[in-house]
Amino acid sequence: MIKVGIVGGTGYTGVELLRLLATHSDVELTAITSRKEDGMPVSEMFPSLRGRVDIAFSSPDKARLTECDVVFFATPHGVAMAQAAELLAAGVKVIDLAADFRLQDIASFEKWYKMPHGCPDLLKEAAYGLVELNRDAIRSAKIVGNPGCYPTTMQLGFAPLLKAGVIDAGHLIADCKSGVSGAGRKAEVATLFSEAGDNFKAYGVSGHRHSPETLERLSLLTKEKVGLIFTPHLTPMIRGMHSTLYARLTKEIDNAALQKLFEDAYANEPFVDVMPFGSHPETRSTRASNMLRIALHRPTENGTAGDTVIVLVVQDNLVKGASGQAVQCMNLMFGLSETTGLLHVPVLP
Amino acid sequence: MIKVGIVGGTGYTGVELLRLLATHSDVELTAITSRKEDGMPVSEMFPSLRGRVDIAFSSPDKARLTECDVVFFATPHGVAMAQAAELLAAGVKVIDLAADFRLQDIASFEKWYKMPHGCPDLLKEAAYGLVELNRDAIRSAKIVGNPGCYPTTMQLGFAPLLKAGVIDAGHLIADCKSGVSGAGRKAEVATLFSEAGDNFKAYGVSGHRHSPETLERLSLLTKEKVGLIFTPHLTPMIRGMHSTLYARLTKEIDNAALQKLFEDAYANEPFVDVMPFGSHPETRSTRASNMLRIALHRPTENGTAGDTVIVLVVQDNLVKGASGQAVQCMNLMFGLSETTGLLHVPVLP
Amino acid sequence: MIKVGIVGGTGYTGVELLRLLATHSDVELTAITSRKEDGMPVSEMFPSLRGRVDIAFSSPDKARLTECDVVFFATPHGVAMAQAAELLAAGVKVIDLAADFRLQDIASFEKWYKMPHGCPDLLKEAAYGLVELNRDAIRSAKIVGNPGCYPTTMQLGFAPLLKAGVIDAGHLIADCKSGVSGAGRKAEVATLFSEAGDNFKAYGVSGHRHSPETLERLSLLTKEKVGLIFTPHLTPMIRGMHSTLYARLTKEIDNAALQKLFEDAYANEPFVDVMPFGSHPETRSTRASNMLRIALHRPTENGTAGDTVIVLVVQDNLVKGASGQAVQCMNLMFGLSETTGLLHVPVLP
Amino acid sequence: MIKVGIVGGTGYTGVELLRLLATHSDVELTAITSRKEDGMPVSEMFPSLRGRVDIAFSSPDKARLTECDVVFFATPHGVAMAQAAELLAAGVKVIDLAADFRLQDIASFEKWYKMPHGCPDLLKEAAYGLVELNRDAIRSAKIVGNPGCYPTTMQLGFAPLLKAGVIDAGHLIADCKSGVSGAGRKAEVATLFSEAGDNFKAYGVSGHRHSPETLERLSLLTKEKVGLIFTPHLTPMIRGMHSTLYARLTKEIDNAALQKLFEDAYANEPFVDVMPFGSHPETRSTRASNMLRIALHRPTENGTAGDTVIVLVVQDNLVKGASGQAVQCMNLMFGLSETTGLLHVPVLP
Repeated sequence: MIKVGIVGGTGYTGVELLRLLATHSDVELTAITSRKEDGMPVSEMFPSLRGRVDIAFSSPDKARLTECDVVFFATPHGVAMAQAAELLAAGVKVIDLAADFRLQDIASFEKWYKMPHGCPDLLKEAAYGLVELNRDAIRSAKIVGNPGCYPTTMQLGFAPLLKAGVIDAGHLIADCKSGVSGAGRKAEVATLFSEAGDNFKAYGVSGHRHSPETLERLSLLTKEKVGLIFTPHLTPMIRGMHSTLYARLTKEIDNAALQKLFEDAYANEPFVDVMPFGSHPETRSTRASNMLRIALHRPTENGTAGDTVIVLVVQDNLVKGASGQAVQCMNLMFGLSETTGLLHVPVLP
Repeated sequence: MIKVGIVGGTGYTGVELLRLLATHSDVELTAITSRKEDGMPVSEMFPSLRGRVDIAFSSPDKARLTECDVVFFATPHGVAMAQAAELLAAGVKVIDLAADFRLQDIASFEKWYKMPHGCPDLLKEAAYGLVELNRDAIRSAKIVGNPGCYPTTMQLGFAPLLKAGVIDAGHLIADCKSGVSGAGRKAEVATLFSEAGDNFKAYGVSGHRHSPETLERLSLLTKEKVGLIFTPHLTPMIRGMHSTLYARLTKEIDNAALQKLFEDAYANEPFVDVMPFGSHPETRSTRASNMLRIALHRPTENGTAGDTVIVLVVQDNLVKGASGQAVQCMNLMFGLSETTGLLHVPVLP
Repeated sequence: MIKVGIVGGTGYTGVELLRLLATHSDVELTAITSRKEDGMPVSEMFPSLRGRVDIAFSSPDKARLTECDVVFFATPHGVAMAQAAELLAAGVKVIDLAADFRLQDIASFEKWYKMPHGCPDLLKEAAYGLVELNRDAIRSAKIVGNPGCYPTTMQLGFAPLLKAGVIDAGHLIADCKSGVSGAGRKAEVATLFSEAGDNFKAYGVSGHRHSPETLERLSLLTKEKVGLIFTPHLTPMIRGMHSTLYARLTKEIDNAALQKLFEDAYANEPFVDVMPFGSHPETRSTRASNMLRIALHRPTENGTAGDTVIVLVVQDNLVKGASGQAVQCMNLMFGLSETTGLLHVPVLP
Repeated sequence: MIKVGIVGGTGYTGVELLRLLATHSDVELTAITSRKEDGMPVSEMFPSLRGRVDIAFSSPDKARLTECDVVFFATPHGVAMAQAAELLAAGVKVIDLAADFRLQDIASFEKWYKMPHGCPDLLKEAAYGLVELNRDAIRSAKIVGNPGCYPTTMQLGFAPLLKAGVIDAGHLIADCKSGVSGAGRKAEVATLFSEAGDNFKAYGVSGHRHSPETLERLSLLTKEKVGLIFTPHLTPMIRGMHSTLYARLTKEIDNAALQKLFEDAYANEPFVDVMPFGSHPETRSTRASNMLRIALHRPTENGTAGDTVIVLVVQDNLVKGASGQAVQCMNLMFGLSETTGLLHVPVLP
């Protein structure tokens, strides 16, 4: 059994890790930290886990994380980079669900996250945890930076088109909509039920941290300069993310060939579902599961196929967009079957 | 492998059966019927099942239900009683999620469901499928009437008090609140998003079909005449049911003894969780799982314990209140471990 | 024009006062205080008010509240009682939307609100602001304690029955459900969208501050000792309150006579609507309006009318349950028509 | 008093017309038709209108619509064009909230609405009811085609840019999100609470009826050929629409100049609010009001302003997007102040 520690288990990515790991056949939950809740049984804070998770929170200094095989950081940005070195030295693998190990460009990290990077050397060793585009590196990594939720959808949606070189890489548009759980379990007025409910808005339109991450990764897929307009929105649902991606085609290509690009790219992927051309995937078709679904559209102009391709991408932001992806990485890092513990059927309705 | 057929798989209890059975280790989904959707792959109607359920709907006449080991009826009232005899004759067990086999009192059935009962003889053989109160009968039954969602909460909440004879059985009050999925997947104005959303209302206050069912079953637990005021409400959430039960104590009993009644009653039950006295269970703590949680309260009067006990009961109306309970019955009927395929951790948030 | 000041305008009752007063023909908004937001235009915090409310928040010490004709306190408990004396001395009338002037029993106030009462003498002068039961006192009052949201529904629902002496006053039950805005605009985890959404729960079942307030007022309507079980619940909607009230009849009375008790009681009330017997009022039928609607039910037992009467009461918790009621009081206190500025048609859907 | 008739008053645009007209100072509601509900008081179907609208539905043949001064059609497409001629002949003005009089290109109408146009001659007389872009024509019109909800946002958002000739008119993108009430009050599975709730999806991505309407109108504003990618989405809220518009700048223009284009265009418009550059308007800031709000963004590239301008537009789809706009047209057609009966303050929260 793999001994697992979780640092910061009181947020949504933390409790989702607990849900997933509670039924994972190969792990043993060894430690979960929260300075504030030291001594409180996890199932007291989250009664959904009564009878299923029997451990209590412990303060970080008491938790014997170095005895774990792997430690997940479900913490704010900046925490993992302060503790990773010690864990790695003790032979513990690290998976960070925050941004500390996502960006290789340190200047960009420091600009967008407004803190110095604490361990530039470790960063070089870190693998970016988007399995479908980086499987080999993750398999052998000791430290993984788990992708942001939006970047997961943008990369998996644009990648086949960029790799094939059929679109104008310099003018990508991603109009993305997230459920409110993406904002985390912090006490804030803006995400109160009475503020975020029955309401829709964009935010961070002039600039968002997930842009540099996405740009850095997309740039690895093409020799062209990548340009991206990324517009995040908050939609009144708890879980779920819907990204509507727009690209201009630069080569003649018919719809069947477009579809084939995606089907080939993801033919063997257990967690990426390419739906029939012209489908409208719903976020709930992925709810509480690690699936991500993609569908292509190409609006016509005067009866002929236009030059814009639209890629619709849906996922559960807390699973494939966060904790499920992290478990998928763990499975790879420990030589398990990639789908172990992740075969939940989406919850509908 | 147990061969399973489902009659009427396009409603919410049907698709929830599919979700649960898709990961059940001991069943094979053999047939699912829908006259209207004959030939359509199940995963086309419910993309959440893409890659997980590979069967197509077939019209009832084409489906070879008699080759199944068990058939679930996820249909309107009246369908199962028309088909049960033939299936039983062929050695197929039957679990009806509608009301055909819930009420032993035929006159009551005919009054509330406004149709003649089609097979009074079979009714006598049918077991009422509330496992915690009727486990032995279900184990040996060939036909099971799966309980209504509200009656499940009312019976499990009142049973320990009635059995102990500590309350006024003649004046029970059940103020119950259901998520909208309880109304089913029928095209109706009243359950549109724009009607049921951001809105709360009672319905059927002057009389509801779940009253006679509950009364009939509760009457088996006590020699007193049982009287019940049952007030159902619709609350703007998809899944979940919260019943607030009120009873007047007729004997001196302190809170610890009250709590012990419940803890003893459900000590070995895998799907009933008696929370600490004074807890406030949330519906989401059972979401998408087969758990039902109970907590007791006793408001004080002038500093002393009053004579009213309040029992709070929560469940997911589609799981423990419907399809999960039906699978729990199936497990018993086929000698499997009762929890097989039902150990989903509740989805929170 | 009546010069109006608002202390604490950043919460939900404050912004609702602004919405109502912005179209009130006889008032001029003179000052609105918030220490934290000093100098910020109100419409910057609440863009819904752009072009409609042109004033800025000012810190309490800068606001010249003594120049107002009336000051509303939309503040936490304890604020109004610290400032009321000075305002009254300056000839300013005071309407407190918190609890400082609701309870005449000071010991009870201090027990439930956990603070000493700052001005017991003023309390004696204060009128309880439930217009339909206390109109004359309010008309001549200089200080009004605006009722709690739950108590408004409980009093208007039980009053005709208590006054008529037809129910067992000692065993009233009120099962009440509130939208989340009732919890206010405070940054708290429990009322986040991802916590309160798609979820239903009871809270404060063992004791809630609105019990003593309701008991004190109901006791004025009858010579019997009043006993009340009050169970508040949180329902996933923004605005709206639904109270389901249960009482046992102690006298022979038929349904028509019951209905007449209510129709007579509220015949001339512009904001209380007695619906036909057996109706199921929806909360949304009062949304964003000052209306409160009532309907009666009497479940049958074996075909005869039972001895329990059920009163269903709905209102918008922020209007008739808070700010609208406060404006109704103001209208009375200044000799205006009671409905001035309050004739909004409910917003449906 | 203007005598008003409404044909088809049981849908959401119909009941919203009733809400708005009930407090309009210059109208008298004379007739409201529904074949199905003939004789039923309006307030019985919509209890929100109890005491405020005293008329009953009448069947179309009984309703004396020719005695009205104006008749609103809140009906499916095709109804108004069958009845308009008779009404106009009787001197009655007509405002159609459906599509019969929106498109001047009859071939386009017949292609998208799949029915022959019943009165091509009348169509030539009809004014397109988007007041801010067509005020003079509406003022003198006898028949008005009220705009679609999406087209309202797209036109008001793109118009200042197109008129100024600063963008690539051939490649406009409109990513639009609508509340569920936009789908109407029809009994359909897709818009049930349990289907549309906690869910987000695109629909009609390959082609939607609001594209040709928008293209036809935008083409009047520029000599360039207009090309539009329009992607509608359904978001789980009742009311509200958020359009995120993307255009590529073809001329050097700084942000202040961009902002000035919009401020100048709408300087005197009572129902269009241009917010400060870089704002993020929320749909709820327009809820239940006739306001439409606009904000501009221009994401930077390497520290310089990029060549993409983003226009965010929000409105209440049932008010400015439908019934409020229709009343605004009526006010103009009858020489009233344009804002009469439309000055509701948005409901927040």
